[in-house]
Amino acid sequence: MNDPLSTTFAALADPTRRAILARLVSGEASVTQLAEPFQISLPAVSKHLKVLERAGLIARTHEAQWRPCRLSARPLKDVSDWLSHYRRFWEESFDRLDDYLHELQSKEKRNVRRHHKDHRS
Amino acid sequence: MNDPLSTTFAALADPTRRAILARLVSGEASVTQLAEPFQISLPAVSKHLKVLERAGLIARTHEAQWRPCRLSARPLKDVSDWLSHYRRFWEESFDRLDDYLHELQSKEKRNVRRHHKDHRS
Repeated sequence: MNDPLSTTFAALADPTRRAILARLVSGEASVTQLAEPFQISLPAVSKHLKVLERAGLIARTHEAQWRPCRLSARPLKDVSDWLSHYRRFWEESFDRLDDYLHELQSKEKRNVRRHHKDHRS
Repeated sequence: MNDPLSTTFAALADPTRRAILARLVSGEASVTQLAEPFQISLPAVSKHLKVLERAGLIARTHEAQWRPCRLSARPLKDVSDWLSHYRRFWEESFDRLDDYLHELQSKEKRNVRRHHKDHRS
């Protein structure tokens, strides 16, 4: 029912699911291996994996009996494409912050110079 | 309670909220202006704005009485930083697709050449 981008964002809105993706960066893993670092039950991990699989963020091999999970990054490319429309906004705001810091620094320098001048006179 | 990244992703997991952000790309707007393109009530729009505001994706000016909303892109930078760890995965998978297409094309060429050769002999 949901659009693909909403499904992707909803799947990513959970720290355990993001940790699972981070683990898969270093290669495919079984459900048991993925569950190891978490203080949650195997069924809870399976539930998270289903959410990730439905969003197309992981794929499970049917070849091996242990059905390893692997990362499937295509939906993340769509997130990146969506984000690109907003890039200039955070770059601009950092530019503004940069301008502000430069302004503060030159004000500071002027003050220091004035102080020295006052001191000499 | 949620971590900031989860809050951001949850806020983005809705097409109306993403459409509101897209509208704010062209400048600040009032709640009434933001509600215009949608077939939803003003309170429903306000609810979406609250989710976006809580995630730090929009900010509302207190100066003007009509309290315009503006885009606040900082959380999107954090999403972009998070995404950067996965970039090589979608780039790699496109490279693999590229390799596959090239392989197909050269196979096709070889077939065409063979066909011509057979035809001449």
